[in-house]
Amino acid sequence: MSNNDWDFIANKAENIVREAAQLIKHSLQTELIVEYKSNPNDLVTEMDRKIEAFFCEQITNEFPKHYILGEEGTGKDLNTLDGTVWIIDPIDGTTNFVHQQRHFAISVGIYEDGVGKVGIIYDVMADELYLALENKGAYLNGVQLPMLKEAKVSEALIALNSGWILKDERLKDLVSKCRGTRAYGAAAIEMASVAANRIDGYISLNLSPWDFAAGAILIKEVGAVISTIDGKELDLLNNSSLCVAKNGLYQELQNDFLNKKG
Amino acid sequence: MSNNDWDFIANKAENIVREAAQLIKHSLQTELIVEYKSNPNDLVTEMDRKIEAFFCEQITNEFPKHYILGEEGTGKDLNTLDGTVWIIDPIDGTTNFVHQQRHFAISVGIYEDGVGKVGIIYDVMADELYLALENKGAYLNGVQLPMLKEAKVSEALIALNSGWILKDERLKDLVSKCRGTRAYGAAAIEMASVAANRIDGYISLNLSPWDFAAGAILIKEVGAVISTIDGKELDLLNNSSLCVAKNGLYQELQNDFLNKKG
Repeated sequence: MSNNDWDFIANKAENIVREAAQLIKHSLQTELIVEYKSNPNDLVTEMDRKIEAFFCEQITNEFPKHYILGEEGTGKDLNTLDGTVWIIDPIDGTTNFVHQQRHFAISVGIYEDGVGKVGIIYDVMADELYLALENKGAYLNGVQLPMLKEAKVSEALIALNSGWILKDERLKDLVSKCRGTRAYGAAAIEMASVAANRIDGYISLNLSPWDFAAGAILIKEVGAVISTIDGKELDLLNNSSLCVAKNGLYQELQNDFLNKKG
Repeated sequence: MSNNDWDFIANKAENIVREAAQLIKHSLQTELIVEYKSNPNDLVTEMDRKIEAFFCEQITNEFPKHYILGEEGTGKDLNTLDGTVWIIDPIDGTTNFVHQQRHFAISVGIYEDGVGKVGIIYDVMADELYLALENKGAYLNGVQLPMLKEAKVSEALIALNSGWILKDERLKDLVSKCRGTRAYGAAAIEMASVAANRIDGYISLNLSPWDFAAGAILIKEVGAVISTIDGKELDLLNNSSLCVAKNGLYQELQNDFLNKKG
């Protein structure tokens, strides 16, 4: 596809994301009041499904040959990234969605033959829309994000869920040596926070492709690095650990903390 | 002092906080651009001092008999809470201030003979002002916050800096059994987040009085519980650990995790 085609697709994707956000906001104002009190987990599952169905309908109408992989089961038998694939998380940060009615995001990554072309992360309640276009940069609400400078562990803020420390010894040394840790509870927002230079890195031991598909494109466009925690390339069809960091910090994390030799 | 006096003081305090916020925002737009790149730590210290000096000037002009205890050294020889004491943190969350230019707060607690009368926490960049008045409730941007319902560990989101897990074994079991942890990097915002029902509890191993003086008043007005991590009353003249939680959750934290017998 030509660049023009991708601009068209990105524009369409942004419109669908914004419409989906309106559906979520509307539901928060109406249904949540009633249903949250009975069973918050059912509610969020229903909302996730509804939004994913909305995406599928819109995408299939506009681009009948595109494939879709979504958190709620769409494309669960997909075993290749050949062609154009939309990887979607209708609500990233479902616990925040239920507990806080904020700090959740819609995450959409569009890949062509496995190459990230368009990444969108929309922090719905903060009204912050991150858009990344392959080789054309990343934008927050239309303003281009600067390329990230180098960072180092001793001055770094790293997003990291504290539960992971109990499961991986390598993280203990890191936690005691970095400037501080943060935990916002939504992988897409944590990756977007790196891209926007609010934190310096993000580590997770287990994420699904829809959690990082959009973020991976965003991170590359601001000149930071992304891989599994072991320094391997991400697999967009399977669950994976994640290590996202500014240059310098990434190499220090890999060499001195995560994959230390000897 | 009468209730009317306290309404007057609260109103004055809110005005001073809002003026201080304007000073901070103005500085973020001008000085930070230049100085952040040279030495962010010096900058924040200077800003902290400037805002604390502004508070001291305003309070002394209006209430010459009131005492002040502040992060930047004001009242450091104060050894009693007799009389009326303003306990001030000009910028709570200084690391966020430097790294993110957001997620920091002004925190002001006003005590009379050791009893919390007025608590104000202002998340400056989110424009969220929390105001608590003894026995008159807590307000977020003028809207009264509902009394908090009971919570339990298995369904709780608890704010907790992951560094503490390495220092206190008791927290490991808690982290693995609660629904999730969050870390926003500013004690006042974390306490305000409990008051606003966005998280269920907050634990810290070491805070200064100005970090929790305002939050303690806020927390009481929404019917949650606050103490040291060992269940003791807070000491407003010295550093302390902190355990803030909704009812039910607080007792479970104390009995089954923090001060488990046998």
